[in-house]
Amino acid sequence: MGPHRFRNNQRMVPASEAAWQLAADNGMLDIRVDATNGQNRLRDVRTGHEFLNLSSCSYLGLNSHPTVVEAGIAALRDEQITGLAMAEFRIRLDAAHRLEDELSALFGTRVIPSISCGVISAAVLPLLASGHLTDSGPLVVVFDKLAHFSMNFVKPVVADEAMVLTSPHNDMRFLEEVCRTYPRVAYVCEGLYSTGGLADLEGIKALQEKYGMYVYLDDSHALSTQGPNGEGYARSVFRELDDRTMIVASTAKAFGSTGGIAMIGDSGAFDFLYRSGPMGWSQGLRTAAIGTTLGSIAVHRSLELTERQSQLAENVAIFDRRMKGYDVRGSGSHIKFVTVGDNERAVQLSNALYRRGYYCSAMFFPIVPRGRSGVRLMLRGDMTASMTENFVSVLEEVLDEQA
Amino acid sequence: MGPHRFRNNQRMVPASEAAWQLAADNGMLDIRVDATNGQNRLRDVRTGHEFLNLSSCSYLGLNSHPTVVEAGIAALRDEQITGLAMAEFRIRLDAAHRLEDELSALFGTRVIPSISCGVISAAVLPLLASGHLTDSGPLVVVFDKLAHFSMNFVKPVVADEAMVLTSPHNDMRFLEEVCRTYPRVAYVCEGLYSTGGLADLEGIKALQEKYGMYVYLDDSHALSTQGPNGEGYARSVFRELDDRTMIVASTAKAFGSTGGIAMIGDSGAFDFLYRSGPMGWSQGLRTAAIGTTLGSIAVHRSLELTERQSQLAENVAIFDRRMKGYDVRGSGSHIKFVTVGDNERAVQLSNALYRRGYYCSAMFFPIVPRGRSGVRLMLRGDMTASMTENFVSVLEEVLDEQA
Repeated sequence: MGPHRFRNNQRMVPASEAAWQLAADNGMLDIRVDATNGQNRLRDVRTGHEFLNLSSCSYLGLNSHPTVVEAGIAALRDEQITGLAMAEFRIRLDAAHRLEDELSALFGTRVIPSISCGVISAAVLPLLASGHLTDSGPLVVVFDKLAHFSMNFVKPVVADEAMVLTSPHNDMRFLEEVCRTYPRVAYVCEGLYSTGGLADLEGIKALQEKYGMYVYLDDSHALSTQGPNGEGYARSVFRELDDRTMIVASTAKAFGSTGGIAMIGDSGAFDFLYRSGPMGWSQGLRTAAIGTTLGSIAVHRSLELTERQSQLAENVAIFDRRMKGYDVRGSGSHIKFVTVGDNERAVQLSNALYRRGYYCSAMFFPIVPRGRSGVRLMLRGDMTASMTENFVSVLEEVLDEQA
Repeated sequence: MGPHRFRNNQRMVPASEAAWQLAADNGMLDIRVDATNGQNRLRDVRTGHEFLNLSSCSYLGLNSHPTVVEAGIAALRDEQITGLAMAEFRIRLDAAHRLEDELSALFGTRVIPSISCGVISAAVLPLLASGHLTDSGPLVVVFDKLAHFSMNFVKPVVADEAMVLTSPHNDMRFLEEVCRTYPRVAYVCEGLYSTGGLADLEGIKALQEKYGMYVYLDDSHALSTQGPNGEGYARSVFRELDDRTMIVASTAKAFGSTGGIAMIGDSGAFDFLYRSGPMGWSQGLRTAAIGTTLGSIAVHRSLELTERQSQLAENVAIFDRRMKGYDVRGSGSHIKFVTVGDNERAVQLSNALYRRGYYCSAMFFPIVPRGRSGVRLMLRGDMTASMTENFVSVLEEVLDEQA
């Protein structure tokens, strides 16, 4: 038996498996689709049932943008190799280096690409904890209670290097107390949380300015969806990155490609991180992913980015206006969570929506607290306003029927 | 300060950074190349220097096989989407499902694909530790001392669920003692180790049969390079996988694609693992990677697999015959380690070889023990016999010059 300081499979697995079984029994898992018409019309290949996918993190639909897809094809065609299959900090394709430069230019700060944002967190957080990003002794690392699994997973590893604390969600008073108590503190959080809700960026920034607190922020759900170049939510406050701030994000969500990026203000950390932990010994971004990322950069530099961002904002406004009377979390955000209570009702709602042509994910403990199960849905900028209106009408009907 | 039970950045980072700085100062890091002529002739884009890459894990050269590259292009062209950007156990492309079927047929057991082998280890090991793959209480998890970073990284996470031990390398007596002492034991190891040397498969199998020991084996460096269908080294002894054995491997090395696979005998574990940990909440294999993996399966089913395997074996035999008098580890294997002693000499050797047209990686603590630095080189099945002969001649000359 382990000490179960940070996790406990014996407690978690039976609860979540029971919920997944319920979802599977209702046909809501293991759906296999054809996506050649984009995510507004996926087709279940076994039943022929067509539906609009409201469970995709590709919030702008760039994953099916022709420029992105074609750039992946072009990269494979030009390079004629899937990747070098070696440590990228030793030798890498010139295309990989070009990608770093273009990402850095787009986001106005040094950027390291990786195969996933989770790999970045696994590489960075233990080094942050031990003081190797701050040239100091170890830091006290405070994880926000709602920080994503990919960060929470690394807690026991971080705890072997430094003290780890978990703060109540967005609790600036708790955080300030920690900053007063310990000389060196890092805060690990998200920008736009994956189950809805925003970080208190101004509060975090104030603590950074007052106490020198290091901020490690995962902005995966906001990258591309906002900012003039799609730099995300966190950069709206942390405009210039310095050596006390790192913002990481998935490039497989709204960005439309594959992998993840770390935006770092401290250029000295670039080479160091490139060869550290899983970023050193695991796979780098492969040729096709380099291509689709370059393709997405081209779209980010075009007018289309703003158009899709605006359409997304309009869809969010439509949803918020019409759904005011319901128990929905995530006002102002493209990630909405409709709380219904127990697992059965969550699956019923998800299933009823699916039969009417919309896939929304039923979500259970441990993703949300026990007894707060529901349905998560994500609006997209490649949905038209009328698609959004139609969806909301169906959602209202189904919720009213099931009330 | 953390307890440093399993890791200690303060001890490791300064030592390894000093060595990397030495390598960087000698121009052996951050080399940017054009690879359009495959790995036998990479070109440094800044100097024009051409060289043969002996540091790639693409041991059969399938990463630049036209069938593999074209299949990646075809997948993007056919699917017109980079990926669904959602939890794959809910909805996935039919192409992803087809890939699972084809991998399972090729390797004769259920196969789960993932974005990397490291992600698979992160997903599986904590669940193995807590008894959720064996329907039991927690297991004592024994990591071989030389198990790869990707497994070692997860030790503190595993230790939060169960007891973790580290065994001397390939020490079957130690392992048997653990099996005698504790009722449930798992052994975590590699097949062909990344710095040369083989697992004692017969010894491991004997302990499994005698004590029911669970075996988790990473065969990344042997997949594709041996076996009639390229099923690797471990499967030569663990032919039929049962519910006490899991073999995982990277598909970005000799396999020539991107990602990793888990070969599992227990079909009941398939759905469970698909939605577990980072395999559930991180990215799945994206469209281009699905394509290149399907392309590599086609090559695996052709005569070319055996041809390249045979050429690799011939190159290994040439090397072993001619290098008998030198301090080289890895006889019989395509991974060779030439020990020279201190860091400076290792970098000098690597640098001298590079000037003569061959890139071999200098390797230091913590990858190898202190004072045992040297150069790692990997032979490939897409090198001709005469390329191998020429390389060995140069290696002999340089070693003799530097002796």
